[in-house]
Amino acid sequence: MNTFGRSFRITTFGESHGPALGVVIDGCPALIPLSAEDIQPVLDRRRPGTGPLTSPRAEPDRVEILSGVFEGKTTGMPVALLIRNADARSSDYDALRDVYRPGHADYAYKEKYGFRDHRGGGRSSGRETVGRVAAGAVAAKCLARIGIDISGKVEEIHGVSDPPAMEEEIRNAKGAGDSVGGIIRISATGVPAGLGDPVFGKLDAQIASAMMGIGAVKGVEIGDGFAAARLKGSEHNDPMDATGFLSNHAGGILGGISNGNEIVVRIAVKPTASIALPQKTRDSEGKETIITVGGRHDPCIVPRLLPVAEAMLALVLVDAFLEQEKYRVFSRAGT
Amino acid sequence: MNTFGRSFRITTFGESHGPALGVVIDGCPALIPLSAEDIQPVLDRRRPGTGPLTSPRAEPDRVEILSGVFEGKTTGMPVALLIRNADARSSDYDALRDVYRPGHADYAYKEKYGFRDHRGGGRSSGRETVGRVAAGAVAAKCLARIGIDISGKVEEIHGVSDPPAMEEEIRNAKGAGDSVGGIIRISATGVPAGLGDPVFGKLDAQIASAMMGIGAVKGVEIGDGFAAARLKGSEHNDPMDATGFLSNHAGGILGGISNGNEIVVRIAVKPTASIALPQKTRDSEGKETIITVGGRHDPCIVPRLLPVAEAMLALVLVDAFLEQEKYRVFSRAGT
Amino acid sequence: MNTFGRSFRITTFGESHGPALGVVIDGCPALIPLSAEDIQPVLDRRRPGTGPLTSPRAEPDRVEILSGVFEGKTTGMPVALLIRNADARSSDYDALRDVYRPGHADYAYKEKYGFRDHRGGGRSSGRETVGRVAAGAVAAKCLARIGIDISGKVEEIHGVSDPPAMEEEIRNAKGAGDSVGGIIRISATGVPAGLGDPVFGKLDAQIASAMMGIGAVKGVEIGDGFAAARLKGSEHNDPMDATGFLSNHAGGILGGISNGNEIVVRIAVKPTASIALPQKTRDSEGKETIITVGGRHDPCIVPRLLPVAEAMLALVLVDAFLEQEKYRVFSRAGT
Amino acid sequence: MNTFGRSFRITTFGESHGPALGVVIDGCPALIPLSAEDIQPVLDRRRPGTGPLTSPRAEPDRVEILSGVFEGKTTGMPVALLIRNADARSSDYDALRDVYRPGHADYAYKEKYGFRDHRGGGRSSGRETVGRVAAGAVAAKCLARIGIDISGKVEEIHGVSDPPAMEEEIRNAKGAGDSVGGIIRISATGVPAGLGDPVFGKLDAQIASAMMGIGAVKGVEIGDGFAAARLKGSEHNDPMDATGFLSNHAGGILGGISNGNEIVVRIAVKPTASIALPQKTRDSEGKETIITVGGRHDPCIVPRLLPVAEAMLALVLVDAFLEQEKYRVFSRAGT
Repeated sequence: MNTFGRSFRITTFGESHGPALGVVIDGCPALIPLSAEDIQPVLDRRRPGTGPLTSPRAEPDRVEILSGVFEGKTTGMPVALLIRNADARSSDYDALRDVYRPGHADYAYKEKYGFRDHRGGGRSSGRETVGRVAAGAVAAKCLARIGIDISGKVEEIHGVSDPPAMEEEIRNAKGAGDSVGGIIRISATGVPAGLGDPVFGKLDAQIASAMMGIGAVKGVEIGDGFAAARLKGSEHNDPMDATGFLSNHAGGILGGISNGNEIVVRIAVKPTASIALPQKTRDSEGKETIITVGGRHDPCIVPRLLPVAEAMLALVLVDAFLEQEKYRVFSRAGT
Repeated sequence: MNTFGRSFRITTFGESHGPALGVVIDGCPALIPLSAEDIQPVLDRRRPGTGPLTSPRAEPDRVEILSGVFEGKTTGMPVALLIRNADARSSDYDALRDVYRPGHADYAYKEKYGFRDHRGGGRSSGRETVGRVAAGAVAAKCLARIGIDISGKVEEIHGVSDPPAMEEEIRNAKGAGDSVGGIIRISATGVPAGLGDPVFGKLDAQIASAMMGIGAVKGVEIGDGFAAARLKGSEHNDPMDATGFLSNHAGGILGGISNGNEIVVRIAVKPTASIALPQKTRDSEGKETIITVGGRHDPCIVPRLLPVAEAMLALVLVDAFLEQEKYRVFSRAGT
Repeated sequence: MNTFGRSFRITTFGESHGPALGVVIDGCPALIPLSAEDIQPVLDRRRPGTGPLTSPRAEPDRVEILSGVFEGKTTGMPVALLIRNADARSSDYDALRDVYRPGHADYAYKEKYGFRDHRGGGRSSGRETVGRVAAGAVAAKCLARIGIDISGKVEEIHGVSDPPAMEEEIRNAKGAGDSVGGIIRISATGVPAGLGDPVFGKLDAQIASAMMGIGAVKGVEIGDGFAAARLKGSEHNDPMDATGFLSNHAGGILGGISNGNEIVVRIAVKPTASIALPQKTRDSEGKETIITVGGRHDPCIVPRLLPVAEAMLALVLVDAFLEQEKYRVFSRAGT
Repeated sequence: MNTFGRSFRITTFGESHGPALGVVIDGCPALIPLSAEDIQPVLDRRRPGTGPLTSPRAEPDRVEILSGVFEGKTTGMPVALLIRNADARSSDYDALRDVYRPGHADYAYKEKYGFRDHRGGGRSSGRETVGRVAAGAVAAKCLARIGIDISGKVEEIHGVSDPPAMEEEIRNAKGAGDSVGGIIRISATGVPAGLGDPVFGKLDAQIASAMMGIGAVKGVEIGDGFAAARLKGSEHNDPMDATGFLSNHAGGILGGISNGNEIVVRIAVKPTASIALPQKTRDSEGKETIITVGGRHDPCIVPRLLPVAEAMLALVLVDAFLEQEKYRVFSRAGT
């Protein structure tokens, strides 16, 4: 299943070392002004090779709009976006063809498909998120027209939350041939009350699926999240007065439906699985071996996941908005 | 969206104070032995009125199989399960018709639908989960045939993890007209490697959606979850030897695909929103008011959510198994 | 797959000789006035036992609304409708347990599921359509609010189109222990231009799926249908003037999208498969045998399919309307 | 909705005069040998510019595989196929920017989206089918591995069925600035009994949707189709003996499920809407006008639709096969 969304549906394709990556957006509203310039800056934010603490793989990640835009505006037809791979060095991975990297999808893929593209992790690579981020930029353009704004930040790296200390943690991990994880907070303002469905299409359930669907994410919280499990009802319930809610422990969602408050989401990102330190593993013949993972990797993937998480939240919200809109005529007729 | 699953699809219906609740299971395999006796014990586990610490609402929750079973076996046709409501006291809720209970879906529903069934929370009530638990029992019967077993436990109530202390916390909350939340751990053994899809249909994403789709759940973790954000790659990666994985920080899922290890999930449950203590709120006219929520409620919903969480995990796994099975002929042909 | 529709989704359940039949409607707009009295008259139109030319099975087909309606209006929650079977005589079918009736689904079901409910055809029975007709009545209530009206008629029975002659054909077939088929025309007026999607969600493709999904239907035409294959472009194209289209060869759909004209659909219904005449067949052991089908059957199912076809058209149109509505805000914003 | 299929899902994109057309196949089994050489010959069959009776637009229609194939075999990841447009002459269409061509989707698109890509019909162009045909070639490779073979032929052009007479009809229509339609028959052999679902996922319903989803198709028949409406049950039912069915009036499908017989489908194709003869129409301002449609068109689209119809049947069958396969383990376990 490489499709996400019900009304604003994206289908991504492409592998780390294949010819190209991309996404087809089906269900994008017509008449949205759109050009490559709207998408490129967001791609640039997740791009590798931009600093000493990211992978040195030099990918320009130039997006081409293949369809769905005419005279600068979306037409309602599928918007296909293409990003060519430029700097794949597949030979870096030759040694990994038959060995399973710990913490990676290698073994699971082989068991599932009987066959895997070992070059850079194939489709399990973080490069797959290029398509999501591109689609997220289109979603964000739609959201801007209805007053919804998304932002995020890295809250914690390896347990520390001060920015210079976070950078230090990454630098130390890199120096040690190791890696670190962290926590991201993303939020959305301007979300009208009423988005999301009561039971299985809960807005928080869709957000949870979107976030856990990002590689390396191991936990998702809405509002107070796990801390809520240690509060009393009298502490956690958000009281209201005539002007609205007086607090936001719920993170903007009640009963699966947005309540007009800021949507607040936190996600836990595991440390990068690719590390230079020797690890015990086995090969595809079942023989035990020691692996030291080469290739070009990020000692901490958290900062580069931030635009991905923002993109996924944008996709969930534009989808939920479209789903809700379809009842507008009937709700007017009924009153 | 009241349907969950792709291959084993369940659609639930019914409100807390309506005539009945139920579920239709579409995509259940044929030839599974099934009778009401397979479902009733699981419904009894989540039933209210069974102890001093649960809601005194006396619901027998007797299940009737309406379709899809012939001569004691499923036929491949939709299995419809019906549970009549017996002890609804809607008049308990008359005072809440126009007032929004803090921590509840009341306000969000009204904003979304322009109208709501205020009796016992309507469909946002925990009673909606009756259908899920019934369907989960059918899923569990399927899973048993392929060697998958699901279990769970309450790990923590209001921050404590010793069973008598947990009960004490609930008793105290009840005495104070307040409520408490907690943490549930569920797991699955016998899950073959290969379930789940690489990108948006990741097994962990589907689990996250399933869990966050349970009312009152505010957080979901797979394996080490949030703790993984504070580990190094060398600590978090699960090494392998010739016999398999040597640890299970990943919680049985890598790259969104099961790796043959135990699937481990933890969820955070907020304190019950219905409390007797006075709370500040507003009514549907926008007037501020003080509310004390009557009706019959659980001071802690965590123990009754346990069978719901187990049911949802069973539903995800049977669905993922069926999704994976469809490629079996081709993977044999290919090798 | 027992679910139909994307926005207005119905899931039917139940077998000819099981305890009950029914449907769950998910995605019905809130605030639609609805009671059993809205549904019952439509069920009565397709009910058996109402005349000398229909099956004598005496089914009252009383509908019960189980959920989704509060104080006489839909709430936006799933609307579950239940119809109990009352006059099943399963023993009529004992002789058919292991024999495949020609023209029926018996053999195909057995091959697919390894097992079948032979009583009255189980779910392949025309009784399954009870749920569709009930859901169609709800769809028709929604359509009425937006000015869409659906009607239909039997155009032809066994090649004749004069009403008394059609009745004569049915009478003759019945007398001979045989059966006849015919052609139904259904249409919709008041359909706004713009419903349907350009490619795979074409309005005509959805209608074709809906109609061919009715048992016994073997052909579907939109507008001129097969006759169009013998026209020239200059004859078939519908010219326009300032007031709109000057003809309707297209049947109200161009490029898969409604053009504001009347939607016109014709379907071919095969003769009832159950006939009293002896037929050559085989049993589940592969032994050849002669069968004469007992039970209670219609010598011509065409008149009773009419409300089913109307219901399916209503379901397609309300679904297409909701799908289209979601873009309303954006199309306004864009202009 | 630009996605078709449940298990073998294709999403097409691209417009007649945009940069490119293509398709993403999601759910393709792993380990299928695949290269551009498998796809190119099928694209060549539907390609324009290959004879005096087709559009002179010179499109090489070279396919590029962007993803999902590694070392000559599919990996189970999305297979993205790209075909660049080479010979778009958009200026041919300048005169049509604000005028609605009779028989085309122009008016319906404008009403739906408020905006349209008028160049060559945009996405309503027959060029959109390039993606379907490419995906169909991949589906056909899968089907070949399980012994299913698809073929088709043009049965009738403008009412005649002798090949030289058909060609003559097309030549005459071209000479007169007019166009003609016709009838296509496609069939599949080697289809195992058991494909398709009983109610809304009937195999014939899916075929009907697939065929009516091809532009210009106005009617679909399975087996005897409309002729069945004039037969008696005793004539239409297919008797069986110990070796199987003795006739195939049903066209290989009973109760929505394949019965092992040849699947037989006929479709009615309307005459090409683009004709040189003057026609009455209106422009986007509502002013009446006379149009003579320029550009490069086929006087009869029927022969070029044949590979499209074959592709769609292949897509339906591979999808139905995968859907059915998922129950294989349970049906074995149950017996």
